[in-house]
Amino acid sequence: MTPGVGRRPRPRLDAVLAVRRAVRVFLAEPDVTEHLGSGELFVAVSGGADSLALAEAAAHVGGRRDLRVCALVVDHRLQPGSDEVAERAAEEALRLGAHAAKVLPVTVTGPGGPEAAARKARYAALREHVGEGSLVLLGHTLDDQAETVLLGLGRGSGARSLAGMRPLEVPWARPLLSTPRAVTRAACDELGVRPWEDPHNADPRFRRVRVRREVLPLLEDVLAGGVAEALARTARQLREDCDALDSIAKDVHDRAYEGETLRVDVLERAPSPVRRRVLRTWLLRGGARELTDAHLRSVDDLVGRWRGQGGVFLPGGVEARRTHEKLVLNRCQPTTRGS
Amino acid sequence: MTPGVGRRPRPRLDAVLAVRRAVRVFLAEPDVTEHLGSGELFVAVSGGADSLALAEAAAHVGGRRDLRVCALVVDHRLQPGSDEVAERAAEEALRLGAHAAKVLPVTVTGPGGPEAAARKARYAALREHVGEGSLVLLGHTLDDQAETVLLGLGRGSGARSLAGMRPLEVPWARPLLSTPRAVTRAACDELGVRPWEDPHNADPRFRRVRVRREVLPLLEDVLAGGVAEALARTARQLREDCDALDSIAKDVHDRAYEGETLRVDVLERAPSPVRRRVLRTWLLRGGARELTDAHLRSVDDLVGRWRGQGGVFLPGGVEARRTHEKLVLNRCQPTTRGS
Repeated sequence: MTPGVGRRPRPRLDAVLAVRRAVRVFLAEPDVTEHLGSGELFVAVSGGADSLALAEAAAHVGGRRDLRVCALVVDHRLQPGSDEVAERAAEEALRLGAHAAKVLPVTVTGPGGPEAAARKARYAALREHVGEGSLVLLGHTLDDQAETVLLGLGRGSGARSLAGMRPLEVPWARPLLSTPRAVTRAACDELGVRPWEDPHNADPRFRRVRVRREVLPLLEDVLAGGVAEALARTARQLREDCDALDSIAKDVHDRAYEGETLRVDVLERAPSPVRRRVLRTWLLRGGARELTDAHLRSVDDLVGRWRGQGGVFLPGGVEARRTHEKLVLNRCQPTTRGS
Repeated sequence: MTPGVGRRPRPRLDAVLAVRRAVRVFLAEPDVTEHLGSGELFVAVSGGADSLALAEAAAHVGGRRDLRVCALVVDHRLQPGSDEVAERAAEEALRLGAHAAKVLPVTVTGPGGPEAAARKARYAALREHVGEGSLVLLGHTLDDQAETVLLGLGRGSGARSLAGMRPLEVPWARPLLSTPRAVTRAACDELGVRPWEDPHNADPRFRRVRVRREVLPLLEDVLAGGVAEALARTARQLREDCDALDSIAKDVHDRAYEGETLRVDVLERAPSPVRRRVLRTWLLRGGARELTDAHLRSVDDLVGRWRGQGGVFLPGGVEARRTHEKLVLNRCQPTTRGS
C-alpha cells in the first residue's frame, strides 16, 4: 500500500489508454474490420495533438493485430518551413511506434479559398497514396464534430446539414469522434510529445476557429455544459435517421419506378419526407439540377396535394407532371423567339 | 404619379399585411381547417408585440371567414399591477378588432422554477377556458423557434430535441413560426400600438434570454447571417423526418407484434433507427421506464448484432430477451434477501 522508498511512481497513462481504447473499439466494428484486409493501416498526421495521439494508439493497437501502421504527413507548402514541420511530424510518428512514415508534398491551387483548396489537395494526395482497399485514420475529435454540426446550422438543410462527419467513409476512418480534444492533448502530455500548433487554428478569419473559440464556449456557459457531447450525440442520431430514410426511399423508388416514370399509387403510401427523397433521386437522374426543398415540395404536391394542377418546371430544363396515375418527366424544348 | 398637394400619404401596412397573410395561409391548411368548426377562434394575448400583431391579423382574417375571434389574456399575478397590464392587453386586442377579450387570472405554483410553473399555469387556464373543439392561436415567431432549437442543442437527443415547436398541436396553433419577430414589431408600429415589454425578456437569468441576446447574434455574425431562418427550416425538416420514421415504425410494430412478443424476422428487415422506435413503444407498454438511447441500442443488438447474448435488464423491472426468433419481455421478480 505504501510506495517503495526511492521508487519513481509509474507515470499515469489514462488519456493514452482512452485513445487506444477508442481505436481498439473502432477497429473491432464489423464494417471497419472488413476493410482491414491488406495488413496496412494508414494514419494522416499533421503533427498536432489529435493526429499524434491517434498515431500512437493506432501503432499500439494495430501492432497487436499484425497491422503495419504507416503515418502519412501532407506538406501543403503554403508557408516557408512547412517541409521541416512535416519532417518533424513524421519523425514523431515513428518515435511513437509507427512502422513507417512518409511526407507527401502537395501543390495547393484551385477555387474556394485557401482552406478548402488545402483540404482538397490533402485528401487527393492521401487517397492517391493509399490506393484501393486500405483505410486512412483521421484524427477528428468530438470537438471537431461539434464544430462541424454548428457550422452546419447556418445551412438549414435539415438532418443532412447537422449530421456531421461519418465515422467511416472508405478510405476515411475517424475513430476519435467520441473522444474530446482535451483527451488527445492529455495523451500527448503523458507521452512527452509537444504537438505542433497550426497558426490557422488561432486565425479568427476562419469560421471554424470562431465557432471553436467563441460560439462553443458561450453555448457551454448558457446551456450549462455538455454541449459538445450533446452535439456529437445528436449528429450520430441524425445521421442514422437520415440513412434509414434514404434506404426506405431507395426501396420505395425501386417499387415505384416503371419505364422512367413513377407510379403514384406506390408513392402515395409513403410519408412525404420519404417521397421527397425518392423524387430527388428520380429528378436528378432525369436531368434536373440545383433542386431546392421548395422544388421538391412542389413536385411532391402532385402526389400529396393533388387537385389537377399543371406540371412543375425545374432547373435543368425539365418538367415534372402527373398523368394517368404516373409522374412523368419531360425535357423542355428551349424556346426560340419568333418561332 | 405625383402625390396630391396637401394629401396625406396612406400609411404603409407591409408588416401588418405580412402577418395577416401568414394567418390566412395557416388557417387554410387542411389539417387546421378541420379544427375550425365551432365558429370561435381564440388568441392568447400577452400584450407583447407578437401576440397583439397576431390578434389583429386573426380578427381581420377570421372576420372574413365568420370566425368570432376572442382574445384570452392570462394574468399570472406574479408582479403587482399585473392585473392592469392584463386589462390593457385585453382592451388593446378589442381595439385591434377582436370580437371579445377575457382576462384569466391564475395562481402560479408547483415545481420546476417560476418560468416553467408560469407556463404550466398559463396553458392549463387556456385549455380549460376553450374546452374541446377549438383552437388557441399562439404568437410564437420564427425567432422563438430558432431559440427553441438552440435550447434543444444542449439536450442531445437527436431530431426530437431539435424539432422545435409544432405549428399545430390541438388546441395550440402557431401561425407565425415562419414570421420574424421584427415583422410583428413593425406591424405594431404600423398599427400605432405600443406593446408591453415583459421585464422577463431582459433577465439574463433565463437561458432563453441569453440565447436570444448573446448566442443568436454571435452565430449570425460568425455564420454570416440567416441563422434564425436556417434553424427554423431545419426544425421543420427534422420534425417531418421524425414523424415519417414514427409512422413507419408504427407500421413495423403492428406487423411484428404477436401476443405481447415481437417477431425478429419482421424487425430485421427494418433499419435500426426504425427498430429502436418500435422497441421503445413496445418496452414502455411492457412497463420499462426512463429508457435511454443506450438501453434501446442494447435491446436492438438482440436483433441487429445477435450472437446468442443474454437478456437486457431495464429500469422498471423488466428484462428483454430473444428466444425462438421472438423478443419477449419478462417482469423481474424483486429479489428477497435470504430467500
